[in-house]
Amino acid sequence: MSIVKNSRHLFNEIATGYPIPGQTTVYDDSQTIDLDKAPLNGGVLVKILYLSIDPYLRFKMRHPEAEKHISLYKFGEPIDSFGVGVILRSQNSAYAVGDHVVSGFPHQEYVVLPKDAPLRVVKNEAKIPWSLYIGIAGMPGMTAYSGWNHFAKSKPSGSTVFVTTAAGPVGATVVQLAKADGHKVIASAGSKDKVDFVKSLGADVVFNYKEQDTREILKREGPIDIYWDHVGGDILDAVLENVRNSGSIVIVCGSVSGYNGTPNPVYRHNLIFERDVTIYGFVNMTIAGRYREAFYKEIPEAIASGQMKYREHIIKGLENAPQAILDVQLGKNEGKSIIQVAAE
Amino acid sequence: MSIVKNSRHLFNEIATGYPIPGQTTVYDDSQTIDLDKAPLNGGVLVKILYLSIDPYLRFKMRHPEAEKHISLYKFGEPIDSFGVGVILRSQNSAYAVGDHVVSGFPHQEYVVLPKDAPLRVVKNEAKIPWSLYIGIAGMPGMTAYSGWNHFAKSKPSGSTVFVTTAAGPVGATVVQLAKADGHKVIASAGSKDKVDFVKSLGADVVFNYKEQDTREILKREGPIDIYWDHVGGDILDAVLENVRNSGSIVIVCGSVSGYNGTPNPVYRHNLIFERDVTIYGFVNMTIAGRYREAFYKEIPEAIASGQMKYREHIIKGLENAPQAILDVQLGKNEGKSIIQVAAE
Repeated sequence: MSIVKNSRHLFNEIATGYPIPGQTTVYDDSQTIDLDKAPLNGGVLVKILYLSIDPYLRFKMRHPEAEKHISLYKFGEPIDSFGVGVILRSQNSAYAVGDHVVSGFPHQEYVVLPKDAPLRVVKNEAKIPWSLYIGIAGMPGMTAYSGWNHFAKSKPSGSTVFVTTAAGPVGATVVQLAKADGHKVIASAGSKDKVDFVKSLGADVVFNYKEQDTREILKREGPIDIYWDHVGGDILDAVLENVRNSGSIVIVCGSVSGYNGTPNPVYRHNLIFERDVTIYGFVNMTIAGRYREAFYKEIPEAIASGQMKYREHIIKGLENAPQAILDVQLGKNEGKSIIQVAAE
Repeated sequence: MSIVKNSRHLFNEIATGYPIPGQTTVYDDSQTIDLDKAPLNGGVLVKILYLSIDPYLRFKMRHPEAEKHISLYKFGEPIDSFGVGVILRSQNSAYAVGDHVVSGFPHQEYVVLPKDAPLRVVKNEAKIPWSLYIGIAGMPGMTAYSGWNHFAKSKPSGSTVFVTTAAGPVGATVVQLAKADGHKVIASAGSKDKVDFVKSLGADVVFNYKEQDTREILKREGPIDIYWDHVGGDILDAVLENVRNSGSIVIVCGSVSGYNGTPNPVYRHNLIFERDVTIYGFVNMTIAGRYREAFYKEIPEAIASGQMKYREHIIKGLENAPQAILDVQLGKNEGKSIIQVAAE
């Protein structure tokens, strides 16, 4: 019997505040697929194993008019995010049955993709868990790696770095890259567990931002030379008040304070010029190309050897994806949030 | 009779909102100086001719605890700004009687400066008005010149540039440099007179921001590749909403929206990373050194030939300096605001 259920995770309505499981996005198991006979038209049939739940998914749930360049989710269709899958059938000689592939995938159990779909075959010579290829060895890790190499490499060893959401896959990678470059690293996270994890990465000063005042810590431990920003708003103000005069840089890689509801504004923009701050905003895709080869050569091996550390939060079952999205926005996940759609 | 009045313009109290003439700063003519006998101790006696009234003077009127790195004014002492003076007596062989010198000067008619005072002798081979050496041929002009050359030169000809406070000496210089580089220039100013002046500089789209909506203009005429920011706050938000996706730059050279009272916040900081914006904050002194020689070689000649245009608003008498400071904050000056302290 080759006809099986093909459950999906659909975009249902715009999120205004936090996304609401079962309302903003919904789980749907009404569809089936014939795994043997589904027409491929020169493409491939992929069984999805893992799907990534990232903070940025939230801003694809905005009104289509809000921001035009980031492809927003469409009502009634599966949301998409990075995933790992395995090829079940192929009419494309670039992909063999059994190949593991990484790409942006729709949230569903099985998907037929056209001939020109941008799949990357992962050989995994380092023999690390496949799920890591959408975490520290995937987009989040590469965001950290490419951003760090692109913007922060010119700073002399011994600079002071501040990283927010430091237990997340991007933040944790930045902490480790910054320590490897000989910097002093100040890092914040939102639970005792996360703080302990970030300490284990070698960060010099780690604090729970829900219990300790970021301004006070930065005043005592700064001034800051490099700020890796995932937050924006008041925390960016706190950093601007505590950057080194002249030459400091802010690398803006996220803005979670403004994702759910009214943005948390920045008041101290005058300090950008008074203190000669350079702010680099970036999304991974614009610079990653230059660093991809080095990243895949270096990072999976460093993970396999235990030199590069990570934490995963794997949740089994696509039906749990709506709740996982909310949990990431609330910072409840302890490690990179990943939905395991199917066993290998 | 060599004993003469030596009137001064003193810092009296912190400004919280707009500076109040006669209260925030006060004119005082209670002192005298003996021009023949005042001891020089190896230094010079300078008669001050012109003093510059700039927007940035406002943030030297804050509470001393507010910002530490910009030397704030001291109660009961003359405020200082850039000025042009002439040497009346000299015990320093570097300066001859009759030399014109430019420096930061205290606001008073005559001043004895020590041997190591950082005076720059201006030969004025281009024979332009001396007052310009604190305007388009001085600090404001050099701020525009060095900032433009440092941050904006890599952009291809035909980019779209937006300049705020475009009738001011920095803005007007930026407009002319941007047009010389072949860009499309959108510029805003605060009166019909100012708009007419900026049009005469060759800007492509000039509007009165008090009468027309900046967002609408930018939406229609953008997207923006280069924003020269003197304002911050809501106008910076309007620009972030209308920058080109990927690769746009913001050069932050002032933040007048936040000088007087509660800062006007920035809400759309999320667009900094979503749209790959780079923001360069700078104050002139950190980069001017690299561009000084080229600036003095190029700009006074360009002014003398009529190629580089400017407007001055010269006010006679140091007693009018307190009001001139407020007028600059309110944008009432029509051209670079300068106090003529004495006839040459």
